[in-house]
Amino acid sequence: MDVQQWMNRARQQIESWIQQSVESWQAASGSVEEAMAYSVNAGGKRLRPQLVVAASEYVGIDPERVRDAAVAVEYLHTYSLIHDDLPAMDNDDMRRGRPTSHKVFGEAMAILAGDALLTEAFVLMSRLDAAGFSPWGVVRATNQLAKAAGRQGLVRGQVQDLAGEHQELSVEALSDIHRNKTAVLFEACLSIPALLAEDEGQAKVLSRFGRHFGLAFQMVDDILNVVGDARQLGKATGTDAGLGKATYPRLLGMEGARQLLGDHVRDAKHGLDPNKAQVLEGLLTFAVERTW
Amino acid sequence: MDVQQWMNRARQQIESWIQQSVESWQAASGSVEEAMAYSVNAGGKRLRPQLVVAASEYVGIDPERVRDAAVAVEYLHTYSLIHDDLPAMDNDDMRRGRPTSHKVFGEAMAILAGDALLTEAFVLMSRLDAAGFSPWGVVRATNQLAKAAGRQGLVRGQVQDLAGEHQELSVEALSDIHRNKTAVLFEACLSIPALLAEDEGQAKVLSRFGRHFGLAFQMVDDILNVVGDARQLGKATGTDAGLGKATYPRLLGMEGARQLLGDHVRDAKHGLDPNKAQVLEGLLTFAVERTW
Repeated sequence: MDVQQWMNRARQQIESWIQQSVESWQAASGSVEEAMAYSVNAGGKRLRPQLVVAASEYVGIDPERVRDAAVAVEYLHTYSLIHDDLPAMDNDDMRRGRPTSHKVFGEAMAILAGDALLTEAFVLMSRLDAAGFSPWGVVRATNQLAKAAGRQGLVRGQVQDLAGEHQELSVEALSDIHRNKTAVLFEACLSIPALLAEDEGQAKVLSRFGRHFGLAFQMVDDILNVVGDARQLGKATGTDAGLGKATYPRLLGMEGARQLLGDHVRDAKHGLDPNKAQVLEGLLTFAVERTW
Repeated sequence: MDVQQWMNRARQQIESWIQQSVESWQAASGSVEEAMAYSVNAGGKRLRPQLVVAASEYVGIDPERVRDAAVAVEYLHTYSLIHDDLPAMDNDDMRRGRPTSHKVFGEAMAILAGDALLTEAFVLMSRLDAAGFSPWGVVRATNQLAKAAGRQGLVRGQVQDLAGEHQELSVEALSDIHRNKTAVLFEACLSIPALLAEDEGQAKVLSRFGRHFGLAFQMVDDILNVVGDARQLGKATGTDAGLGKATYPRLLGMEGARQLLGDHVRDAKHGLDPNKAQVLEGLLTFAVERTW
């Protein structure tokens, strides 16, 4: 199994699902759908939908059946980026080489585009019974995603991030922020296919994989901000130190940070069936090997 | 059946549901839950939860079982008020006699409190199977609320409102804005109990009632803005004319507006079982009789 090949194929599939979803809106000029489409079409790695697809293959579901869930998690992720970029939040003018939503459409429309993408995620989740999943599975999967997105997940992480930027944090406090900002949504992406298939046992194992994957993913970001190459990354490095931000390398030293990263990689794989875990483990390796 | 008495009792019940929900968050100082609670506790008529309760009685469901849905629609309504009040939107400093969320907690926290309330609505909706409803009914009800809140409902109405404030609109265009801003959420409130009970026929009749109720409700606002007493209303009158806003009285004259209002009241009741419709019709009468 060549993971790079798998990723290319999955990404192509996901792009086509997203394009079909966006086209179905028939976005008119000046509509909120126009602003939604602008940010959704800004690209990115589509990592979260890839996690949904990989998990669906792991539990033996045709990925075509989870397409609405894959698109939903990307919409949810895009909403969080639009709102995080707002002047009142991180005040970012550029994202992925293009002006941010509020720069193009104004603040009011950017807020509304985020609101509508968040809501659209739940429109998509709550129609997954049409793909042949039991309503019980759909309810469990929808509830999981809502909890990941809200006050005990994504929103909480952003609040913590805004409050903690210039403060001294413990490793535990930093991990808690990263869990909320990133890992809870990864957990949801991984467990949604198992929940749809009504397999609570697999959901638990996959959720654990997602949690450690998410924490590792955030650590990689921290480490690359210190040792990475700005041109290769497509974004500035050394910015965390400039902001006085708490990061793993700062709290643990580079060696300590790399060791904790290794722990997460090992813990992520715990309980996975090695006969079916090649893609999942390959995605994780691909994400962390940039720091080696 | 004394509707005023029914409303007092329902409202008391709803307030206690909301308080229990808010207390379960254990909001710490500086948390997003603190900002969420501030706006939820700002009061208001709790009309949307009352519609959920009235509809549940109409279809023969113990209102206690739909409590999560009643709280969810109030959270959704509160989120829309918080975001509408933001400086980038309507830029309102006061709401219900208290400073708006962004005035107290800052813009970033107000945006996040709205995001978290919107999300919490779907956490609550997607756990209604715990109240003994079939997962199929829960999926249908959740999907209905998501569609009402999003790009084809509430968000669309706000986009139209921002765009149309100083423009000449036709009666049809104004009705379309009012439908999206208000009526689609009323439709959802009314049909959710029937959907939970898997009664698609009743859901249709109740949804129609909600649509005309919502449109009538918005017309009443327009009319009172012209003829109302500011002290009694608790808000300024004559503001629409000052803004050059399109309103029904301006487009149709006061007589024409009152006639259209009467049409909505008549059309709302169409198809309702008169033996069970006393509360629903009473709520509608109560809402419009302020203009008589």
